[in-house]
Formats: sequence, structure tokens, C-alpha cells
Amino acid sequence: MKNTYLILFLLTFGLFQAQSIQSPSKEITLDFSLANGKPTYAVTYKGNPIVKSSTLGIKLKDNAALDSNFTIENTSTASVNDSWKPVLGEQSEIANVYNQLTVSLTQSKTNRKMNIVFKVFDEGVAFRYEFPKQPGLNYFIISDELTQFNLTGNHKTFWLPGDFDSQEYSYTESKISEIDTDKIDLNNGIAVKHIAGKYIVQTPLMMKTSNNLYINIFEAAVVNYPVMQLDVDIKNFAFTSHLVPGPLGDKAYLQAPCDSPWRTIMVSDDARDIVASKMILNLNEPCKLDDTSWIKPMKYVGVWWEMHVGKSTWDYAGSQNAQNNQTGELIASGKHGATTENTKRYIDFAAKHGFDGVLVEGWNNGWEDWFNNWKEDVFDFVTPYPDFDVKAVTDYAKSKNVKMIMHHETSGSVGNYERWMDRAFAHTVKYGYPAIKSGYVGRIIPRGEFHDGQAMVRHFNYAARRAADFKLMINSHESSHPTGYHRTYPNYIAAEAARGTEFNAWSIGNPPMHETILPFTRLLGGPMDYTPGIFEIKMSAYDPNKKEQIHTTLAKQLALYVTMYSPLQMAADLPENYEKYSDAFQFIKDVAVDWDESRYLEAEPGDYLTVVRKTKGKNTWFLGAVTDENARKTSIALDFLPKGQKFRAVIYEDAPDADWQKNPKAYKIRKVEVTSKSKINLSLAPGGGTAISFVPIQ
Amino acid sequence: MKNTYLILFLLTFGLFQAQSIQSPSKEITLDFSLANGKPTYAVTYKGNPIVKSSTLGIKLKDNAALDSNFTIENTSTASVNDSWKPVLGEQSEIANVYNQLTVSLTQSKTNRKMNIVFKVFDEGVAFRYEFPKQPGLNYFIISDELTQFNLTGNHKTFWLPGDFDSQEYSYTESKISEIDTDKIDLNNGIAVKHIAGKYIVQTPLMMKTSNNLYINIFEAAVVNYPVMQLDVDIKNFAFTSHLVPGPLGDKAYLQAPCDSPWRTIMVSDDARDIVASKMILNLNEPCKLDDTSWIKPMKYVGVWWEMHVGKSTWDYAGSQNAQNNQTGELIASGKHGATTENTKRYIDFAAKHGFDGVLVEGWNNGWEDWFNNWKEDVFDFVTPYPDFDVKAVTDYAKSKNVKMIMHHETSGSVGNYERWMDRAFAHTVKYGYPAIKSGYVGRIIPRGEFHDGQAMVRHFNYAARRAADFKLMINSHESSHPTGYHRTYPNYIAAEAARGTEFNAWSIGNPPMHETILPFTRLLGGPMDYTPGIFEIKMSAYDPNKKEQIHTTLAKQLALYVTMYSPLQMAADLPENYEKYSDAFQFIKDVAVDWDESRYLEAEPGDYLTVVRKTKGKNTWFLGAVTDENARKTSIALDFLPKGQKFRAVIYEDAPDADWQKNPKAYKIRKVEVTSKSKINLSLAPGGGTAISFVPIQ
Repeated sequence: MKNTYLILFLLTFGLFQAQSIQSPSKEITLDFSLANGKPTYAVTYKGNPIVKSSTLGIKLKDNAALDSNFTIENTSTASVNDSWKPVLGEQSEIANVYNQLTVSLTQSKTNRKMNIVFKVFDEGVAFRYEFPKQPGLNYFIISDELTQFNLTGNHKTFWLPGDFDSQEYSYTESKISEIDTDKIDLNNGIAVKHIAGKYIVQTPLMMKTSNNLYINIFEAAVVNYPVMQLDVDIKNFAFTSHLVPGPLGDKAYLQAPCDSPWRTIMVSDDARDIVASKMILNLNEPCKLDDTSWIKPMKYVGVWWEMHVGKSTWDYAGSQNAQNNQTGELIASGKHGATTENTKRYIDFAAKHGFDGVLVEGWNNGWEDWFNNWKEDVFDFVTPYPDFDVKAVTDYAKSKNVKMIMHHETSGSVGNYERWMDRAFAHTVKYGYPAIKSGYVGRIIPRGEFHDGQAMVRHFNYAARRAADFKLMINSHESSHPTGYHRTYPNYIAAEAARGTEFNAWSIGNPPMHETILPFTRLLGGPMDYTPGIFEIKMSAYDPNKKEQIHTTLAKQLALYVTMYSPLQMAADLPENYEKYSDAFQFIKDVAVDWDESRYLEAEPGDYLTVVRKTKGKNTWFLGAVTDENARKTSIALDFLPKGQKFRAVIYEDAPDADWQKNPKAYKIRKVEVTSKSKINLSLAPGGGTAISFVPIQ
Repeated sequence: MKNTYLILFLLTFGLFQAQSIQSPSKEITLDFSLANGKPTYAVTYKGNPIVKSSTLGIKLKDNAALDSNFTIENTSTASVNDSWKPVLGEQSEIANVYNQLTVSLTQSKTNRKMNIVFKVFDEGVAFRYEFPKQPGLNYFIISDELTQFNLTGNHKTFWLPGDFDSQEYSYTESKISEIDTDKIDLNNGIAVKHIAGKYIVQTPLMMKTSNNLYINIFEAAVVNYPVMQLDVDIKNFAFTSHLVPGPLGDKAYLQAPCDSPWRTIMVSDDARDIVASKMILNLNEPCKLDDTSWIKPMKYVGVWWEMHVGKSTWDYAGSQNAQNNQTGELIASGKHGATTENTKRYIDFAAKHGFDGVLVEGWNNGWEDWFNNWKEDVFDFVTPYPDFDVKAVTDYAKSKNVKMIMHHETSGSVGNYERWMDRAFAHTVKYGYPAIKSGYVGRIIPRGEFHDGQAMVRHFNYAARRAADFKLMINSHESSHPTGYHRTYPNYIAAEAARGTEFNAWSIGNPPMHETILPFTRLLGGPMDYTPGIFEIKMSAYDPNKKEQIHTTLAKQLALYVTMYSPLQMAADLPENYEKYSDAFQFIKDVAVDWDESRYLEAEPGDYLTVVRKTKGKNTWFLGAVTDENARKTSIALDFLPKGQKFRAVIYEDAPDADWQKNPKAYKIRKVEVTSKSKINLSLAPGGGTAISFVPIQ
């Protein structure tokens, strides 16, 4: 009662104004307040405070901040309950259900207007700043965003260090109070790093409270704005938005009318709600393409892993630094991977095993002198090496009904790529390639830009839009993290933007828990080209001196095709390795990449994940279960299967003695007949997994 | 004798090594020395010291400077005497005659190699740094260039303030000791300025010594390097190279093998030697285009000056800031210049009077909201305003045998232009336009770059090369200053890159001496699109409240077609103004723009210039004479005319009472019969000029 009096008192004097809305489930409450003209918000979940009163606002360059002296001009609410159909996805239809509160603010004296719009879904809260068209605010420069996430305790977090150029780190599991980027091992294989500070972390930031609530802070629809990282107050457990700067230290250049990206806070007492959430997609604009018939899911193999394991080289001359060759001549090393002949071998393999596509990296001039040199005129994207005949490869692939995936490494020289883009895309179309894999390994040019700044976010999105003009799909590597723009441009079919499988081949690698965290973080923003499917797990198979290995069992590699959602999936290992384990390989051949339905059966970030999915348009189902470094036993009820129908389940699982370190390739395959009433006991080895296919018995 | 002993002594101990070469005329001597491992040079002319011992060297980022601890590895000399034919030019053949000294240096301890190459022409000295391919120097970043120009006295200079974004200043005439950019009036109409410091000036820097020697410091072949400005030591009369930085403060990103641009020091006791010199062109690479048949000189009119004088507007909506229109709708102002109808009027005029082309500015979307906003997605270069029908205009122009000039204002948003460039050029080709005028009015995007930094120099040159792929000619405005690259890509037909005629329409304007300096400075680097030919000299003709006027007489406007060399010349005034003075207009119709031969008859920087040129492939001659604010009488011997042939000379001159301020439009035209033995007395009014055509009498 005391508080009520206080609020009444403040309202009477106009100092304090408050508004609340709840999620459709009424489990989440969002409170907006204006105290002494300063906007703040707070979030509770089932009565528990999740975000304590936190500031909202924007600092401007050359202009007073939009953070105080506000009055509420108007508030309005809305309730939305609709659905839409993604072109490709984890489910064929996505429900979009939320309550909305729009607070229209006017700043006294300056008379500038800013709206804050809140959407409260059952999985969490989203809000953004909107800058209406107005005389007092036309072009403006954001020098800082003042959004606070003032948490209630010293939660467990899975964090990546704040880095303006890379997200390719392993997650550190620690309390908020223990966050410190100085503690990160930087000898981790990342080519280009720019650690932003001691107490800065990236989003999505996955957390767990001591009373078992799961909280996730992220963002959606980052289209014309830098990536948001988070300043951490390790004593007060408060995070504040830290936008990635441009070369002049400015954060974002905008013109009203415009909006900030959405800031999202997901919360649940069931971790599955977060991993299954489509909130990020719902916060993005609907598809802007009229014709999406050319956007197709794709399983592919490629001339790629053989370079990572050292069997062949990306470049013709066998070195990635031409300086090693003082004559400047391009002399064939004999180890070049992207030859016409080798590519035909992959095309044959793809055709034989029913893969849609073949990727070839290292086909074009430039690889002989590019790496780590901040070189501007580096690749031209249309000139093949002398041993790669684009037309011959294209013709051969067509004859085998296999699609080629074009590869464009930019080396971070983005100005150069944009200058070549139309020619490169036209070249891709000319040879009938339906998709492009792009790469950004290198410091960015224009110099002074970071991978995660506004200019680069704009570039990645521009590349997707421009590719759509050419009806090309894009899979970007080393891009800024996706935040759902593939809803708007579904030809942006996948991205990397996290630590992928490749790091296992030549660095300290990815710990077994890595794949149990990514679905709670990176994958919320969009599909990841994680390149699973490595069967030859230890690099000593290629070179007895090598100590590196994938931190996995073979069975877990199969499970990843289901747990790591992407409509573009690579079978990354070498054809000869798949041929050695053709029974296990059958799962990769069978597994779908586009789905009608997905059910997360078990989920605990950093520990385990089990998901089952129904193939789009077919009554076949695929289950994937992964664990971290700990063995795990569980029993799965098959009540997701249609009732009254018998299915043949093929279970690809760790052998009893399997272990990611000691015995990673020990797997077994068993076939059982099941119905929706059956249960299957799963037994996952340390670092292991299980993959199951369900096919109806006719 | 003492010096000889000293040199011998030093040579013995390896501390001092020296080399000299002379110009073919032997009037200029270049001395190179290595004193204690530090390279220096000095220049004398007819025995007079011009440049005293001055340092040479390069500072590197992340690496020891290349300025000391050198030993001479090798020296070599060469003599060159050849010639070449420019595609377009002041003369049909250019002699290239010089002596060369190459000093190959090795730095002790680091073992890095750098060559300094000197070329000594009869008009002056040029040198550059060469970085050979070598193990110890591959990619490198230049943080400063240490080239010194240590002059011998307090010379008179014509200087522009050091500014990283603009050269559009009037020249200040002062002693070196009086240079101070704080003294410049910055209320001068320049939209984007970045004054670099109190004691920094631009090149070309034209000087005159107290003993009447003319000295000019400039640069040639700036292709992949920033523009060089000059730090001024006003007490010691020494200049040091000041390279325009990029966003990180770095100056140039290079990879060996590569060269710096040429640094040039012209010197003569006859100012005509400098204004006539082709040294800058000779220092550039020969033409790289196999087919140049499509590169044609051009005289043009255009929908342009009428916007400057306020008769019409660039943009459809009559404002250059859409914010003025809160609805965001594009509402026709009724004053839009680039309409189909108005353009047809100019096409008719061009056809009637024999002009090759018509320029139209403001035809495309974007003008309604662009100016001074640092806006990235500003123009698209392919979408016309509703009242401009590209196809109808094109068809009409074709029917009249008139070529259209495409206009691309970039607003400095260069990333945007490069993203659109292929589409924009293809659009230009599709409609049959042979040439593009590009503009860069605005702060550069990528942000942090300046108009004169390496990235922008690269852009301007890239645009020329890419335009050549489409067989398009380029005329860039607000670009970095040309340094002869049009020899290599002659489709880079002209540039602005200095204060043009337009400033007279709406600012304090250009003083009468302006056009007597530009041939000694800006024009050394390449043709300038100065847009002369303004007959309606006072802006009060358009608006009685206006005080602005062109600082010229009408006759001088005619003379500029000869004194300001360009193969692309605009008749800038409105058709209706030319019709009012059709007898004077006849000279603009007659004058050639491409030449077999040019003779500078009289020249004094800041005071006057008289030049006569022979039309390419024709026995007609055109003379132009201009003066500064002072009246001038002179007599010209016509011995340049072929002997034994009679010519009809039409003399367009200032009337006796003409005066640029009080009576600028007073001119008279007289016709006389002349031979090579004749003389013509010229009488130039204050701020005036004379133009003469010579046509053989059959």
C-alpha cells in the first residue's frame, strides 16, 4: 500500500507516469515509467523481477541526448495474434502473438519526439526506439545508446568477449561477477580480433538464475545500425548497450523517420521456450521478395575440408603470401584443391549420394597473396586459376544434376567486393550457380570499419538484397551476427558468424559444450552454416604429428544436422571418409533440411539439447540429441509421431565405450519399429550424441 | 678546392657520397648526396641555388623509417629523348627529353632497399621513391613522407590553404613568410572544407623569386597515393610534404613493388616555360587503352547555369532538403530545370549552333534531399524525376545529332556510387550518352575519408578506368587534383578540382587574377572544366537584389576558351543570353577544343597570359589573352602563322571604356587581314581579355 500512495503522489505532481502491459500468457509484465522525465522500464516473470528499473535513451552527437526531460504525449496499446509462413524454416507456419505498448514522448524545450514501442510475447519482451519525421530531428548521429538491462542477481552466463570484429570464440560459462575478457585465451585461431574492453560481452547473452530462470538478451532487425554489445557492471549485474563504432567513433548515422533495432529479453523457467522461440523472426519485416520460388534448401559437399586438414591448398601456388615467391610467378604447387578434376570428383560424389550442391573454395585468383595483409585489390571473383575451368565444371555439374556453390572470399576488402559485386554476381548467374558462399577473413576496408559496425551491417544486408536481384542465395561467413533479416530476404539462407567446425582442425577447437550453447545464442538470429559431419575426427589421420581433433563423437556429428538448424547444410568431410563409414553416412544422406514442425524435447544451455523435426511436406521425422563433455542417458517418448502409424526408427548412437577424447568413432546403428506410444532410451557418450530417422512403414 | 678535399675526405670514410645530373640544356643541376646515411638532394638553375640541401625519406607505421642508415648499392644514369602523341591535347606531339639518375639504396641492419629516381628535364626536376620487391618490405603503411623543399629565400607565392577536402579557394598572393591559413576568408562558398593547419598549403605551388626566377612545386602520377600538400616553415622558407590522411591517420597503404608519385620542381627565368611544360604528362604512364577512337573532344551547353543564377532548381520539389516538406511527397515546384521540355530547348540550341553536347543536371531522384547531410543512400543515378523522360530526350537529341552528357552527383557518398556504378554506366551506355559529369559535393562516405586521401584518389582513378570499360568519358567535379592520369586514361577528359566560374554566381567569387594563375597551377595536372562563356555578367539581371557578378569582361570570357585548355568546354550561359550577343557568341561557336600546336606568347602568373593555338588538323588559329584587375596593352607578332598565307583575323576585344566592375559587357569586334609578318595591338580592360580567330583567306 505504501508504494501505491507514493505513485499516486508522484502522478499528482506529474513527476512519475507509469504504464504496464503483459504477455498474452500474463506471465510476463513490462512496466514503463517516466520518472522526472527519464524513461525507464522493468520486467517481471511470474511475479519475479527479471529486469529492475533500467534506463532507456539515446545519446546524440552534436545535439542534446534523448534520455530525459520527456513528457508522455500519448500511449497506445494493441494486441496481435496472427501467423505467417516462412519460405524455409524450422516450421511451416509461425505464430506471431504479442501485446504492444507504444509510448510517444516529447522532450520539453527541444520539442523533439521519440517513441518507445514495447512488444510482450509469451517468450519475452522486445522494445525499440522510433524517431518520427519531425522538424527538430532530421539527420542525426547516435553517439551512444543508453539502454540498460539491470538484472537482479549474479546469474550464470555463457558469454563471448566483446569484440568488434569477431564472434568466433568459445563460450565462457561464468557468473556475471566473473566476466573479464582478459581471462580469455586469445591464442584461439581467430584471424582478426578487436577486443573492445575488459568488461564487454556480446549478444545473444544466455543466462540462468539461481532459481532456474532462463534469460536471454539479444536484438532483432539490425538492418541499418551497428551490432549491440553489452557493457557489464560486474558488481551490480547491470548491462548497458555498447554499440560497435565506426572509424570516427560515431555509432550510427540515421535520418528520421527511422527505428532502432529491437532489444529483446527472453525469459522462461523452461529453457526449451527460449531455444524454440521465433520472437526474433517475428520482429523482422515480412519477406520483401515477390517470387521466392528460386530459394531452395540445400545439402552440399565441397572442396573445403581437405584444405583445413592440409591435404590440399586453397591457392594454386601453395602459399597464401606471394612474397614467398620472389619471382612473382604463379607456379603450381601440385597441391591445389580447386582443380577441375578434383571438383568433378566431388560432383560425382554429390550425384551418387543425392546431394544438391558442391562448393569449391580457392578457384579464383588472389589466394596466392591475401591472408592477413589488409590488401585492398585482392580478389576479382571472376578470374579462375589456370587449373580450374569454370565452364567445364559447370557443364559437368549440370550433366549430373548437381548445383555449384560459388565462393567469394573478400578478405574483408569490402569496397573491392562492392566494386566487383555486379560482375561477380553476373558471372555466378552466367554459369548457373544458385548460391554464393562469401567470406570476410581480414581487417575491413574501408579502413577503420569493424565487421560489426553500421557500415558492415549495411554491407551484409546489401549483399543479400543485391543477390536477390540476381536470384542468388547468400551464405556469409565472418559476417555480423544475423538478427532475423532472412525473414525479409530469405535468400540470405545462412551465415556463419560464430565459431564453426573448422576451428577444430587447426586451433584449440570448440569444447563439446559449444553445440549445446549455440542454439540458445547464435541460432536465435538465423541459420548457421556450421559444417558438421566430420567422421575422420582426429587430425593425426592426415599427419601423425597433429594433435588437433574435433571435440565430438561421430554420432554427435550426425545429431548436429538436426540440432543446428539450417536450410543449408554441408557434409563437410572428404568423400573418402564418408565411404569408409557408409552406414553412418546414410543418416546425412537421409536427413532433411527444411521442416514442417520442430519440437524441442529437452534443453539445458551448456549441457544438452534434444530436438525432433518433421520433414517439410513428408511424414518422415528426424531427431537429434547432443550432450556436452558429460555422458547422458535419457528416455524419449515418441508422442510427437502421428498416432496409429508404425515407423521404422534408425538410431545412430554412440557405442557403449565411445568417448569424444578416447574413442570418438565408436558408434552403433540399430533399427526398431515404433509408434507414437513408444519410448526410446538414449545413451550419449561424453561429448556424444544420437541421431534418429523415423520413416513410416507402409 | 676546399670543398673538393672535404668531399674526398668524406668519401674515403664512406660518410658522404654524391651524384649529380643535369638537364639536357645543362641549365638545371640536380645533386644527390648521402650524408651519414641520410639521402638529400639540391637543385640549381643557371648556377643559382633553387632548392638547398633537402631531406628525402619515408616514415613507416609499424616499422623503422626509410630515411637514414642507407648506403648506395648502385647508381645508374640514362638519357631519354623521345616523343608521343596524346589522344587529345594542346599539341599533337609531345617531346619527352630528360636525363635520369637512379640511386639504389640499402638500409644497413634492416637490409631494406629503396631507390630514388631523378629525372631532370629542361623545365625542372622530378623524383620519386621506388620500393622494389624484397623480402624485408612487402605490405607497408606510410605514416609520413619526409620530402623537403628547402628554398633559398622569401619568394612570392600564389597559395591555396592546405585543405583535405577542397581546392576551391581563390589564390592568395604573398611572401612565404606571410603564409597563414588563418588569414583566409572562409566565407567563400565552399560547401565542404577541412583546413589542415595554419601553415599548410596545396600544390601546385607557384612562386617567383626576387631575382625573377619562377619555381613551381607539384606532383605527377598520383595513382595509388594521397595528394601531397606542403607544411610551410615560414621562417626558413622550407616546405615539407604533408600527405592527406585516411580515417586512421595513416597516409598510404602499399605493397612492394611500387612507387611514390613524382615530386616535381619546375624552374625557369621565363614563366612561359612553366605554363607550357608537359613534364607532368611525361611523368605519367602511356595510354593503356588500345582503342581510343571513341574519345572525342566536346563543346557543350547545358541545363546548369540557370540553376546557379536562381532561374530554375536542380530538384523537382524546389528544395534540396525534403524536411521542408513534412509530408515527404515530391511536389513539383514548377521551377525544375531538368524537364524534358527545357532540355529539348537546349538540344535545339546546341543543334542550331553546332555544339556537340548537352549536359543536364538535376534529372534524377535524390536532389530533393541531399545537400550537406552526409547521407549515404542519396542518389541512384538511374531513376529520373517524373518530368524528365530519358528516352524521349535521348531520341530527340539523336534526331538533332546532339550528344547528351550524363550527370552523376554523388554528394561525396562514394560507397553508394561504387555500388551503383555498373548500373549507372550501363544506363548511360543504354541511352547512348558518351560522357559523364560526376560531382562530389559533400563529406565523403566511407566516413573519415577526405576528398584528397589515398582512398579517394583511388576512387577517381577507378571511376575513369571503369568508365573506359564502358567507353565513357569522365569529367569529375570536386575530385582530387589531376596529376596527368589522363595521359594513361584519356577518357578522363577533364576535371574541375579548382575554384570554377560557378562561385561568381553566389559567393564572393573569383578575383580577376584567378584565371591568370590557374594555368600555372591547376592546369599543369590536366584539363579543367572551368565553364566559361558567361555573357550576362551581373546577377542583378536575374534578381535586382543580387550583388554578385562574374569578375570579368565579356571579351575575357571568350579569351578563356583559349587560355584555359580543355578538350571539354562548356558554353555555360543561357541560350537566351547568347542570342542577345550573337556576334560575340560566334567566337565560342568557332573556337576549337583540340589542338596541333600551342604557343604561350606572354605569361606572368597573377598578371597576364597570352596563348595562341592551332586547331587540330586544320589551318585555323585561336588566340586568347587575359589580364588581372589591371588594364594591359601589348603587341603580338603573328609570326606563328604559316608564312606567305593571308588570314582573316576576327578580334573580340574590350571596348575602350570596358571595365570588369563598371562596364563589363562593353566589347567590340573588328576584322583585319593579316599574315605572319603582321602585328596586332591588344588592349585589355581591367579584368579583361581578347580573343582572336584566324581563318585562312582562300
